[in-house]
Amino acid sequence: MLRIALIGAGNVGYHLGRRLAEKGCAVEQVFSRDKKKARNLAEQIGAEPIDHLKAVSSNADLYILAVSDDAIEQVAERLSEHLPEGKTVVHTSGAAPSTLLAPYFQRYGIFYPLQTFSRQREPDFNSIPICIFSPQSELEQELLGLARTISQSVHRIDDEQRAVLHVAAVFVNNFSNYLFQIGQEILGQEQLPFGLLQPLILETAQKVQEYPAREMQTGPARRGDLATIEHHLAYLKKFPKFRALYEVLTREILEEWLKG
Amino acid sequence: MLRIALIGAGNVGYHLGRRLAEKGCAVEQVFSRDKKKARNLAEQIGAEPIDHLKAVSSNADLYILAVSDDAIEQVAERLSEHLPEGKTVVHTSGAAPSTLLAPYFQRYGIFYPLQTFSRQREPDFNSIPICIFSPQSELEQELLGLARTISQSVHRIDDEQRAVLHVAAVFVNNFSNYLFQIGQEILGQEQLPFGLLQPLILETAQKVQEYPAREMQTGPARRGDLATIEHHLAYLKKFPKFRALYEVLTREILEEWLKG
Repeated sequence: MLRIALIGAGNVGYHLGRRLAEKGCAVEQVFSRDKKKARNLAEQIGAEPIDHLKAVSSNADLYILAVSDDAIEQVAERLSEHLPEGKTVVHTSGAAPSTLLAPYFQRYGIFYPLQTFSRQREPDFNSIPICIFSPQSELEQELLGLARTISQSVHRIDDEQRAVLHVAAVFVNNFSNYLFQIGQEILGQEQLPFGLLQPLILETAQKVQEYPAREMQTGPARRGDLATIEHHLAYLKKFPKFRALYEVLTREILEEWLKG
Repeated sequence: MLRIALIGAGNVGYHLGRRLAEKGCAVEQVFSRDKKKARNLAEQIGAEPIDHLKAVSSNADLYILAVSDDAIEQVAERLSEHLPEGKTVVHTSGAAPSTLLAPYFQRYGIFYPLQTFSRQREPDFNSIPICIFSPQSELEQELLGLARTISQSVHRIDDEQRAVLHVAAVFVNNFSNYLFQIGQEILGQEQLPFGLLQPLILETAQKVQEYPAREMQTGPARRGDLATIEHHLAYLKKFPKFRALYEVLTREILEEWLKG
């Protein structure tokens, strides 16, 4: 059985570690600088909690670095100081290239679950796309196989493609979440409950599970309804930042549909 | 039993008519300029299909105008020409004021289901917020009662509040759908399947069903990760429109979290 050392117990490490253990992988160690986090996760999955990188065992078959992007290189370097040669190391980042690991390990790759994780919510791992890459094709096959044990959506995605995915993910996740925040702030200012918008948000996301986003577009800009746009801009004078954003997005949608 | 004439068989009329009928309301007529649409809906709910406004019966207790915003006034005027005095007329728009109806009817109000409807998808009506308003408080109570038969989320929302809701809805629905479209276009350009982003979109929407959007914010701008932002902007040079939007949104999130 594959013996895994999981380096990092943040949101990605936490859920990935639990899922791997659930599917029968031997996650033998959990490292976190935060002792409590290491212990919490390790207890759940029958692993040894550690809070020093020097305590990372030489016996694992796979080292998964689920640490923040700017820590990957430093952690890789420090691990390489005491791990024997030939060890396999992957990281879980959407943004960092696999080549960050190249100076330190001969067998390296990517194991990137494309989802937004938070401690409180149990993800449906089966549908989470796992993006796999390694320049060593044999290792890549092994990683694809491992990924298939925890998800039905497994993809070979090279560094360049992964960088593109990450940009697109910023638009659909970070930026749309910011729009949700704007909606919430506008309603809050007017003492209206956010519950009024929650079903709309969910339905908007559900529609693009089935249909192309462009075909699902509605609203005043889509219709070229300039009177409503004027009303909205007049109202938004009390939120200058939101008003500027409304203008930019409306202009882009208007242009999109004028040309279309 | 309340006898209803439904004017309009577009997305809102279609789903609202079906839901009212399902809950035992007598929808006796369905009007649409499009004969086929009128007939299709009318057949499903045991109503009479009509395609001339003059054929709208004088016997209904409630006339629901589910027509586009810019048709409301004209339809109200034409109905008022042959309907007897004292009839009750509501419209279903999020953007148009109730007072559009005031010159033509003494008993008027709003029956606004706050959701994005499309023909293909069956909405979960029980959770759709229904926004009710009438300047006649007795009528308002009747409309609130009717709304409660089709949804568990019924709210009294005056014209001013509804206008605010509509602005906020543009941000969370129309604008975020446009961001989903951008994600889809970027992936399409690179021959990557949109399925890679769909679970992320759904999870982003599901998170704000439970937690405040601001607390759920993640990503390079949230972290102040300028290196990743630079990489993204460099990549986006091939999509100048998306790049400008990326800059605006990133700047706003950066400012939000610098001050926070």
